[in-house]
Amino acid sequence: MDNNRKVERSDTMLNNQLTQLLKIEYPIIQAPMAGGITTSNLVSAVSNAGGLGMIGAGYMTPAQIREQIREIKGITTKPFGINLFVPNEFEVNESEIKAANEKLQPIQELLKVEPVAISEIPTYEEVFNTFKKQIKIVIEERVPICSFTFGIPSREVIAELKEHQIILIGTATTVKEAIVIEKAGMDLVVVQGSEAGGHRGNFINEHQESLIGLMSLIPQVVDHVSIPVISAGGIMDGRGLMASLCLGAKGVQMGTAFLTCVESGAHEVHKKAILNASEDQTVLTLAFSGKYARGLKNKFIQDMQKQENELPDFPVQNKLTQKIRGAAAKQNNTDYMSLWAGQSVRMAEAQTVERLLEKLINEAERLYND
Amino acid sequence: MDNNRKVERSDTMLNNQLTQLLKIEYPIIQAPMAGGITTSNLVSAVSNAGGLGMIGAGYMTPAQIREQIREIKGITTKPFGINLFVPNEFEVNESEIKAANEKLQPIQELLKVEPVAISEIPTYEEVFNTFKKQIKIVIEERVPICSFTFGIPSREVIAELKEHQIILIGTATTVKEAIVIEKAGMDLVVVQGSEAGGHRGNFINEHQESLIGLMSLIPQVVDHVSIPVISAGGIMDGRGLMASLCLGAKGVQMGTAFLTCVESGAHEVHKKAILNASEDQTVLTLAFSGKYARGLKNKFIQDMQKQENELPDFPVQNKLTQKIRGAAAKQNNTDYMSLWAGQSVRMAEAQTVERLLEKLINEAERLYND
Repeated sequence: MDNNRKVERSDTMLNNQLTQLLKIEYPIIQAPMAGGITTSNLVSAVSNAGGLGMIGAGYMTPAQIREQIREIKGITTKPFGINLFVPNEFEVNESEIKAANEKLQPIQELLKVEPVAISEIPTYEEVFNTFKKQIKIVIEERVPICSFTFGIPSREVIAELKEHQIILIGTATTVKEAIVIEKAGMDLVVVQGSEAGGHRGNFINEHQESLIGLMSLIPQVVDHVSIPVISAGGIMDGRGLMASLCLGAKGVQMGTAFLTCVESGAHEVHKKAILNASEDQTVLTLAFSGKYARGLKNKFIQDMQKQENELPDFPVQNKLTQKIRGAAAKQNNTDYMSLWAGQSVRMAEAQTVERLLEKLINEAERLYND
Repeated sequence: MDNNRKVERSDTMLNNQLTQLLKIEYPIIQAPMAGGITTSNLVSAVSNAGGLGMIGAGYMTPAQIREQIREIKGITTKPFGINLFVPNEFEVNESEIKAANEKLQPIQELLKVEPVAISEIPTYEEVFNTFKKQIKIVIEERVPICSFTFGIPSREVIAELKEHQIILIGTATTVKEAIVIEKAGMDLVVVQGSEAGGHRGNFINEHQESLIGLMSLIPQVVDHVSIPVISAGGIMDGRGLMASLCLGAKGVQMGTAFLTCVESGAHEVHKKAILNASEDQTVLTLAFSGKYARGLKNKFIQDMQKQENELPDFPVQNKLTQKIRGAAAKQNNTDYMSLWAGQSVRMAEAQTVERLLEKLINEAERLYND
């Protein structure tokens, strides 16, 4: 046994192009899950443990973003990142909303919530203005890393962020999307496999075309881009990290594994549902938001399944189901909550972030040295 | 650099429980692709190069099976295996066949083939009798390894094969299926990820439930069974082999990577289509056989897409499209051939089996020693 060599070898593995660029100890990024999951405690715990904590800011107001960034800076001096949704054009159509509300009516009555009125739904222009303000806050508050989902921001936005030395990460589901992200000047690309929980990040390819498993997606993307690749989808432990590195990724982004951690802001019944689930219980659904997302199959998804193709697009449908999801959460009623989860739910554990990362790194090093 | 240690280490990796049980040099199994792809040249080339060649005998008559086994034994002294389809009950319904033939009529006319008559379609009893005869040949010809797809054979069949020291491999798409395979007394289990080309092997879980990416599927199965796990789906090179081993598999089964090899019996236009394809061009379709399978999207799949749920089940629909596929192949017309392929088509190469395995092992060892 050559112990010196061992240390050197595991250093090479864990300390690479990605960790050096992001100034983190381990090539592990906490997925920027939107909707209250990425509490300041979660983000800072991940960064303090040597990974990269990320704020899932897609649904947050500029003021909320500023507040959380400042709060996190009070708990960690380590780098952390933020994720924003790139707005895609959409139309708010009165008759479509009426039809969707009719489909939701039995559930609204059951949960005693009012239908969402058309006046409550922001226009594309409003969404786009919010995005611009979000970007402004990211720059003003000097967040060192910013990732994007659902597309690529304009050249101007990219140029402005780069001027402020902010490291940019795009999200791709196919080789084509990864190439476009590299060409747009992003520094890193997250490749989201079909295993991933939550919303699909496809923005060029259609839904079905973009469901590529990581065993196929990672090496094919790695063969076609020069920027470092981060793999996402179903990665829960040291085995997934090492497999990703073997396939050519420089690091991993993990969602479900952090969602069930003590520090995560996910609803307790959401965590419990994941901890009791098996890999064959997740489905891809349009019903909650108008954009495909993977979560645990429940009554809402089943009730809406046959009509899910007739619903308004994201983010309109998301707004239309907001009160339903909110009321269900208050009532601890998992039938009508969006229980986002990836395909590796059997490996989820209720634990602290520190314990998750400690076990993960130990396992990765053991695999590396075996 | 400690070269002795290196050799020892890569020996440990490549020489494991699986290679010892199968008496092969490398933990690499050539997927038993049915339909003329697994020529005796392909099977023997894989076994001679240190992997395990497999006859895809699902559609073969007992006489054809005996002939090919004897032919392969003339070209290699190394172990090889065979795969059989476990028959599942089905009904041949005259009105259903009439309706399906009506849907196929424009294509039959275009390709100048007659519709398949009900009298040409075997009954379940006939299919089951053929299966029993296939088993008999496997035993008589002393094939050392037999794998199964689409289910688990009866206790009696398993007991008989085991009495003759034949190593048995089941095919699972979920943890539940893998557990049932282990309980049935199989020696090994192939886990088929959603990345895989060709027919889906699910036999307990429904189609949608069973589309689990390998990054999720391998570790979750490994955590729930004791028999060695072989991963299948999108694995093309040393990266995929090493990733599979990191996730807990003891070896890999590769289809598409061998399909484009010189020795494979796949149609030249099928090979070319794969060599020119990208990862976002495969789809899951019921149209060719009545059972979901992954292949390159073409005109036949698109023409039948809207009505694919109204077609007869496997193997009836498979028989109904046999003349169409045959005529299209004769005419080099990829529009109406089943172009089965996994999601890693960008990594496919036209090469000999020897070269494929040489590069794969070199790459795996390089990854292991880096």
